[in-house]
Amino acid sequence: MTLVLRTIPAARHWAQTERTSGKTIGLVPTMGSIHEGHLSLVRRALQSCDRVAVTIFINPLQFGPEEDYERYPRSFERDRSLLEQEGVHAIFSPDVRVMYPSPPSTFVCAGKLGETLDGAARPGHFRGVATVVAKLFHILPPDRAFFGQKDAQQAVIVQRMVRDLNFPLEIEICPTVREPDGLAMSSRNVYLSAAERADANILYRSLKHAQNLIRSGVRDAATVIIEMQEMIRGVHSAELVYASIMDLLSLEGVREIDREVLVAVAVRFGSTRLIDNLIVAPVPSEPHPAGKRTKK
Amino acid sequence: MTLVLRTIPAARHWAQTERTSGKTIGLVPTMGSIHEGHLSLVRRALQSCDRVAVTIFINPLQFGPEEDYERYPRSFERDRSLLEQEGVHAIFSPDVRVMYPSPPSTFVCAGKLGETLDGAARPGHFRGVATVVAKLFHILPPDRAFFGQKDAQQAVIVQRMVRDLNFPLEIEICPTVREPDGLAMSSRNVYLSAAERADANILYRSLKHAQNLIRSGVRDAATVIIEMQEMIRGVHSAELVYASIMDLLSLEGVREIDREVLVAVAVRFGSTRLIDNLIVAPVPSEPHPAGKRTKK
Repeated sequence: MTLVLRTIPAARHWAQTERTSGKTIGLVPTMGSIHEGHLSLVRRALQSCDRVAVTIFINPLQFGPEEDYERYPRSFERDRSLLEQEGVHAIFSPDVRVMYPSPPSTFVCAGKLGETLDGAARPGHFRGVATVVAKLFHILPPDRAFFGQKDAQQAVIVQRMVRDLNFPLEIEICPTVREPDGLAMSSRNVYLSAAERADANILYRSLKHAQNLIRSGVRDAATVIIEMQEMIRGVHSAELVYASIMDLLSLEGVREIDREVLVAVAVRFGSTRLIDNLIVAPVPSEPHPAGKRTKK
Repeated sequence: MTLVLRTIPAARHWAQTERTSGKTIGLVPTMGSIHEGHLSLVRRALQSCDRVAVTIFINPLQFGPEEDYERYPRSFERDRSLLEQEGVHAIFSPDVRVMYPSPPSTFVCAGKLGETLDGAARPGHFRGVATVVAKLFHILPPDRAFFGQKDAQQAVIVQRMVRDLNFPLEIEICPTVREPDGLAMSSRNVYLSAAERADANILYRSLKHAQNLIRSGVRDAATVIIEMQEMIRGVHSAELVYASIMDLLSLEGVREIDREVLVAVAVRFGSTRLIDNLIVAPVPSEPHPAGKRTKK
């Protein structure tokens, strides 16, 4: 039986009781619309923690005024059923008035990490994310919290928040789960028309192309980015937002790919904005592997 | 014996051990230079908690580039001795590299509450305060933390932070402790020359005058503020920074004093900036008390 917790005292009481009896707690924060990506986090949490709580809260603070807060998909009963099947111990799903009884004055700000990439297009987004994650960490203090690599910038910001503010917990970032054609699982995929859905694997294809270029020895980030941009622009329904190659920790753009990098893209299909990324390591400085093909 | 903790793991271990054995923990964050004001917080903490930890950390994040971080008084051995005499159980006094091993990217921002009054004169000050207090709450999680009413804006911001971010703890604000002439205890009082020190009770005198005016029935905040300003400007070594009458929670200026208000002043003596405040309730709307004297 999965407990459904609606209030902060109920959530605190549950966590306190489990902790007092020596159980470790894993936390998986979500906005609901549970898909295989979330379930992979849940399974990982169940492997490494005695008790697992999933939070379902569509956080208005991380949506811009022109964004999809109102139409963001909501499917609590389906979510509850999916999480129960996995063996999740508790779902914390508070009303917005529980989380924000009055307009907040205090925020957790992500600094420069929150201003680039998706933060540049969505001002205040990562402040909203960091603030709600900090609240959840205080309401249901976990030993370990699980986030997906799909939201790479969020992952970097949450890990940095935990380190900078000394939260007494560990963050685990789990691999992106993809559809058979490579499209990263996302609650926003349901917004896509059939034609857009067919085109949407361009994100993954462009990332794989970048990976191939880098693994084949290309070191100049601009060269890789231009090829990705051209691929994305070649797809009718796709509008390029960004293609970027960055340092894994600082999220600053990289010129020469001389270490492991984050390759990230954002593409708009109509009003739906999708993101994806790969972490790519360059091959060690060896003879260009393509050279082998020309040899006999 | 008072334990001196220098590292984050040592502090966490101490708090964890006390907590596991069922003890409640009181936390008194300070920047050292312990005076009677701090000791009053410590005594209050010892009354209401099983174990009391005092943190001594001069937080560079809350000092502006032109401020007194370098010359801020440091007196660890004297502080340790004073706190030991009171029966404090642990002192957490980390090196700056322990608290900030690298420049932080994540901050706790106090929003509008941090931009007014002292925040207007000291940009970034309350961001620094809120950030370090959040860090300390995560390193030495207390059941209750104690702050002085002397730093009224800090008190409002910390209380609001705890509420907005759902920290699982209580904040207690303790009364200002004063010298016999009314000057509020402050580590910065040592900066004053003898002449400045003699003049420095103008802060308290102007606040008492405001209290008398309000209690005698004056409802117009501007009238009270003007009288305070004139008193302060009448003192040779004093330079008025602000005199303000505000709502207790929002710190927004009040026009009509129709509820309990925060009356606050800041005055500069040379390069030393002192602050003080009183919470003042207006008399209920009754016959003007001064009227009684004229009756027979």
